[in-house]
Amino acid sequence: MTPIMSKSDAADLVVAARVRKGLTWAQIADQLGAPVVWVTAALLGQHPMTPEQAQTVCGLLDLDDAVAESLRSQPARGTEPAIMNDPTIYRFVEALSVYGPALKELIHEEFGDGIMSAINFKIDIARRPDPDGDRVVVTFDGKFLDYRW
Amino acid sequence: MTPIMSKSDAADLVVAARVRKGLTWAQIADQLGAPVVWVTAALLGQHPMTPEQAQTVCGLLDLDDAVAESLRSQPARGTEPAIMNDPTIYRFVEALSVYGPALKELIHEEFGDGIMSAINFKIDIARRPDPDGDRVVVTFDGKFLDYRW
Amino acid sequence: MTPIMSKSDAADLVVAARVRKGLTWAQIADQLGAPVVWVTAALLGQHPMTPEQAQTVCGLLDLDDAVAESLRSQPARGTEPAIMNDPTIYRFVEALSVYGPALKELIHEEFGDGIMSAINFKIDIARRPDPDGDRVVVTFDGKFLDYRW
Amino acid sequence: MTPIMSKSDAADLVVAARVRKGLTWAQIADQLGAPVVWVTAALLGQHPMTPEQAQTVCGLLDLDDAVAESLRSQPARGTEPAIMNDPTIYRFVEALSVYGPALKELIHEEFGDGIMSAINFKIDIARRPDPDGDRVVVTFDGKFLDYRW
Amino acid sequence: MTPIMSKSDAADLVVAARVRKGLTWAQIADQLGAPVVWVTAALLGQHPMTPEQAQTVCGLLDLDDAVAESLRSQPARGTEPAIMNDPTIYRFVEALSVYGPALKELIHEEFGDGIMSAINFKIDIARRPDPDGDRVVVTFDGKFLDYRW
Amino acid sequence: MTPIMSKSDAADLVVAARVRKGLTWAQIADQLGAPVVWVTAALLGQHPMTPEQAQTVCGLLDLDDAVAESLRSQPARGTEPAIMNDPTIYRFVEALSVYGPALKELIHEEFGDGIMSAINFKIDIARRPDPDGDRVVVTFDGKFLDYRW
Amino acid sequence: MTPIMSKSDAADLVVAARVRKGLTWAQIADQLGAPVVWVTAALLGQHPMTPEQAQTVCGLLDLDDAVAESLRSQPARGTEPAIMNDPTIYRFVEALSVYGPALKELIHEEFGDGIMSAINFKIDIARRPDPDGDRVVVTFDGKFLDYRW
Amino acid sequence: MTPIMSKSDAADLVVAARVRKGLTWAQIADQLGAPVVWVTAALLGQHPMTPEQAQTVCGLLDLDDAVAESLRSQPARGTEPAIMNDPTIYRFVEALSVYGPALKELIHEEFGDGIMSAINFKIDIARRPDPDGDRVVVTFDGKFLDYRW
Amino acid sequence: MTPIMSKSDAADLVVAARVRKGLTWAQIADQLGAPVVWVTAALLGQHPMTPEQAQTVCGLLDLDDAVAESLRSQPARGTEPAIMNDPTIYRFVEALSVYGPALKELIHEEFGDGIMSAINFKIDIARRPDPDGDRVVVTFDGKFLDYRW
Amino acid sequence: MTPIMSKSDAADLVVAARVRKGLTWAQIADQLGAPVVWVTAALLGQHPMTPEQAQTVCGLLDLDDAVAESLRSQPARGTEPAIMNDPTIYRFVEALSVYGPALKELIHEEFGDGIMSAINFKIDIARRPDPDGDRVVVTFDGKFLDYRW
Repeated sequence: MTPIMSKSDAADLVVAARVRKGLTWAQIADQLGAPVVWVTAALLGQHPMTPEQAQTVCGLLDLDDAVAESLRSQPARGTEPAIMNDPTIYRFVEALSVYGPALKELIHEEFGDGIMSAINFKIDIARRPDPDGDRVVVTFDGKFLDYRW
Repeated sequence: MTPIMSKSDAADLVVAARVRKGLTWAQIADQLGAPVVWVTAALLGQHPMTPEQAQTVCGLLDLDDAVAESLRSQPARGTEPAIMNDPTIYRFVEALSVYGPALKELIHEEFGDGIMSAINFKIDIARRPDPDGDRVVVTFDGKFLDYRW
Repeated sequence: MTPIMSKSDAADLVVAARVRKGLTWAQIADQLGAPVVWVTAALLGQHPMTPEQAQTVCGLLDLDDAVAESLRSQPARGTEPAIMNDPTIYRFVEALSVYGPALKELIHEEFGDGIMSAINFKIDIARRPDPDGDRVVVTFDGKFLDYRW
Repeated sequence: MTPIMSKSDAADLVVAARVRKGLTWAQIADQLGAPVVWVTAALLGQHPMTPEQAQTVCGLLDLDDAVAESLRSQPARGTEPAIMNDPTIYRFVEALSVYGPALKELIHEEFGDGIMSAINFKIDIARRPDPDGDRVVVTFDGKFLDYRW
Repeated sequence: MTPIMSKSDAADLVVAARVRKGLTWAQIADQLGAPVVWVTAALLGQHPMTPEQAQTVCGLLDLDDAVAESLRSQPARGTEPAIMNDPTIYRFVEALSVYGPALKELIHEEFGDGIMSAINFKIDIARRPDPDGDRVVVTFDGKFLDYRW
Repeated sequence: MTPIMSKSDAADLVVAARVRKGLTWAQIADQLGAPVVWVTAALLGQHPMTPEQAQTVCGLLDLDDAVAESLRSQPARGTEPAIMNDPTIYRFVEALSVYGPALKELIHEEFGDGIMSAINFKIDIARRPDPDGDRVVVTFDGKFLDYRW
Repeated sequence: MTPIMSKSDAADLVVAARVRKGLTWAQIADQLGAPVVWVTAALLGQHPMTPEQAQTVCGLLDLDDAVAESLRSQPARGTEPAIMNDPTIYRFVEALSVYGPALKELIHEEFGDGIMSAINFKIDIARRPDPDGDRVVVTFDGKFLDYRW
Repeated sequence: MTPIMSKSDAADLVVAARVRKGLTWAQIADQLGAPVVWVTAALLGQHPMTPEQAQTVCGLLDLDDAVAESLRSQPARGTEPAIMNDPTIYRFVEALSVYGPALKELIHEEFGDGIMSAINFKIDIARRPDPDGDRVVVTFDGKFLDYRW
Repeated sequence: MTPIMSKSDAADLVVAARVRKGLTWAQIADQLGAPVVWVTAALLGQHPMTPEQAQTVCGLLDLDDAVAESLRSQPARGTEPAIMNDPTIYRFVEALSVYGPALKELIHEEFGDGIMSAINFKIDIARRPDPDGDRVVVTFDGKFLDYRW
Repeated sequence: MTPIMSKSDAADLVVAARVRKGLTWAQIADQLGAPVVWVTAALLGQHPMTPEQAQTVCGLLDLDDAVAESLRSQPARGTEPAIMNDPTIYRFVEALSVYGPALKELIHEEFGDGIMSAINFKIDIARRPDPDGDRVVVTFDGKFLDYRW
């Protein structure tokens, strides 16, 4: 009996195979017919895949069954603090530190006392051409949940 | 000589006046002709206002010059960690913890090595009606900056 | 213009009045016709009250309008870490540290990939007589939310 | 001489065997005749098992004696902070952050100065059907202990 | 309406009165007919006193009713980390850091899986004459509680 | 040349051998003619043993010379914070958090300005039968050291 | 007798007077005939000023002697962590996180084992026009100190 | 399939090869025709290299293709806190702690509300001869970015 | 009844009076006939003074009885972490970080298993002229205490 | 190509060889003709050795070239926090916590605004016989560096 390969080891193998085969995350997502942020997050270890999804990815990337088993398994979600300080990720953290309390005020004003769900939730990223330099546009889209006793 | 009123004290007075006068953040933003998230963040202490903006707000809310002086002053930006754990704000933090590394991968894939600026940046919030429950849609929109030596 | 009284100052006054008048939390909750854990949490600063609820409480406890205004205001929720180490609260923290991963496994087994909502949520406490010593029974009751993209 | 297998390694093997054999935690608990939260927690490393329990589990899951020895051994209890931030577990942590001080007030009101034991304690989880979405119901049930010098 | 005086303010006044009147903690405990560690801890804010105890202390120390009301109130227990680093307290912390795991092993060996209660618990301090220098002897005495589901 | 086996690896082997041979810590201490808390702490890596003690233990437990060399070596003392949160150890930590400042007051009152040594120090644990449930009695016994310039 | 005004209070008054009089830091530095970064840092509380410097500043800004006394006093240097997260300061922190180990390698390569002094040290900031957007140029200039026993 | 060699392992091999071949970082940078701080940082794992750069380095240092693949890969940037406390790096951290708020004031005074980019950014180090001891001169040079909604 | 003035407030008044009267710490120590580091530390709040010492200091500095009462009171010792990062203090912290493990090895080699007491302890500071720049010489001098059960 | 052996692994081998050969740190220092604290710190990984020193040590201790290469390499200096809590090291940390601010005052009084260098620095340890128990005497000796712009 061996343990299930860790999500982190599986992600390392997925990344290595993806790079060596010259595939983009978008191409993998296309093959799966699933949204690209979801697919990327899942392959990095944040969501369990269905057996079919795991099989498709491993076929595409020539990865063996142990990886597929890991991709199907239930994750413990979250990212270690050191990684959150990477500049590309930190800018989002900084934006929340600057605008978080304003978002809270406006959610309460528009919807009442409650939250944007991070579970019934999707997130997308797009490139918007701009003559002053193209822009990264990231959309958080979650169901409003009101405090309801 | 007295110190400039702190941004935090000014924000407390703005909030009190806003509530007592029954004004929304959106109405204040309309009066200023400026985006509502920016206005809310500025009034909570995250951006300096121009003298005209500060005057307009204080006129609208019957706040005295000391508040206007504080609103014009340059802030030290950021939010204390305890506030980031408020559930309404924390859901955004959690979403970054789950999707941050995926966003990083996809920014690099689409744009190359760099970041979404948090300075040349705007953020918006909207309500999207949905039969399964309306949704909070928050859009981060920042200029891509590539690592350029 | 004065700031809105902080939730913490309002809670201190509510506690002082409650003790001096010899009222229980349960009696206050009865007057409000609302669940006792919700009422206690709200009066300690974790939920906004309706104007009617705030008025009723302040009438009952002889507290002035500034307290009522504070009770109506929107809170930043959460408790500082030092208080979470009080022994009576810490035992719940410890129980989560011991049983949290098991609860996670069993939620996934029974419901699938998702969470118990802490927003569409209620909590109750009861005393259960037991010949070996009465027992504290606390029930967390939240809607299951599945990860749904 | 080799060290006793760590509780964490044993848990990884139990989880792998459970998944590959298609057994639920509930089925394992049934075989042991013990409560399912206790069994799950014990197999994840939070409680020592009796030799008979350990033997039953290893027989059921085809795990060897080294795993059984580990399951019998005395644990150092607790969960690392990173895991407590997994969304499924964090909701319980958040609920305590919001309702912990209220529970403390109500325990003192109903029972006097003391705590709910986390040792003479049991915890259960159930699914409650609800037309608005089924609910996760978790019950903490511990003996009241009064401060007694 | 004024808030109840904080336990910390009450303790400051008790300490000041005790010093100025030249009373020892032991003398105060004698007047109360209660154990000296319990009395000292209670007056420093870690236990609620009965109305009679609070009255006796305030009479003895010429403190007014606001102090007595504070002494009767229910505390949030615990000591801030900075104080735990005071050398006189830190030596106990260090001893636990060196001997804590050994105590755990020996509690399990002698009593089985469980803990020493910190609630059904008393602690005493004594001076033991010794020709090589008198010794501080501190006794922790708590009921054993076994993990009992 | 190989490094000296770490204290932690040696402790793991001692624990494994002790369990498999069915020996108690008390029996090992008897063989060494040394106090049981000291012996347990030393075998868990908190004190160096003499060559004779190390040899006796390794003979008794059938452990090889590499373990004995490790047991003789000088430790870096202390326990990692995660272990201090194990419930059996944490109750002592909590007791210090509640009673530490009182102990400080009483040491100063009885002995003057100084500390209980944690070096010229011994600690013992005993079981005291009690009809309401047996009690864990732990005695800290250290030489008083006064601040002496 | 009153305490010396804190450096932080003095800095708040300097900032308020500077803003209200419409003076720049550069103009104040010119009046003092001292480098602008040094002057700004000193007025924010990081360096003691000579009596003449303190007098000149207070004359220029109409601040009273209590401020001058504070400006002359010896500071405890450093900035609280929350301020270091302000985006304008954080970019320097981030740059050190990315390039710190490289600077260390190159100092050792060019100078040998040692450090750049932060005491025998000056720092300057300049604006460098650039058609792609002007640049902030900050120069750290410290004496090399080699590890010398 | 094997994972891509970690940046940290690649850096260890680069450092070992560089030392054993007696090459300086400056010589490697010369071979690459790239700035020495950039090259050093990239080889320590903070920047991805182009395939040509990675090939050149590995040829120069006799390192195999697995290293080159790692050097080409996208990093998670940043340095662990323990390394930031190395004295040679810490002096820069200390300088920021002393002068950071002054730099912030002067950037705002000269450029307006904004930041020095750490992305459109270069950094250089030089030795400046000085009769009182040569000096380490480090220049941070980043594009000014104004807060622009 | 008023609380005893805090050690920190008393230290602020001592420092203000010392500066305004132009006295050095050494002169105060001379008046007390006590070692200068001890006196300075005591006046900064780290040691209780005898009534005579407190009286002498307050006479010398024209401070009132409330200060003397505070100087006599028992301190909670230690310095907050932010102050330990002041560069003048931090260099000692850094030296311990570099040489602490070496000191430990050499204490064990020369004295056996034990510590240098920080209680039966004195510390002195002196200036040693040196043609290359005068030197700060700080001597820690504490009784060796062996681990003695 | 293999990485250079880590300083920590080299130190483990030096310690093992030293113990097994029955050599003291002082004897090794004598062989090197270098101060014993410097030698011990260097062998524990805090200073690079010259090739001759590294060779001498490895010859004396029968360690191979890989160790010598590691001893010559440039360290990242500092000690992990857990080790700083070892009682033998912690007493120095505690002494700084008690006397650090006093040392700062006295350095400023005697030398002016500046620091004791931790780079142009030496440290020594000696045993001073004393009838009341021998004493550990540790001398920090660093060049004074004044803040000099």
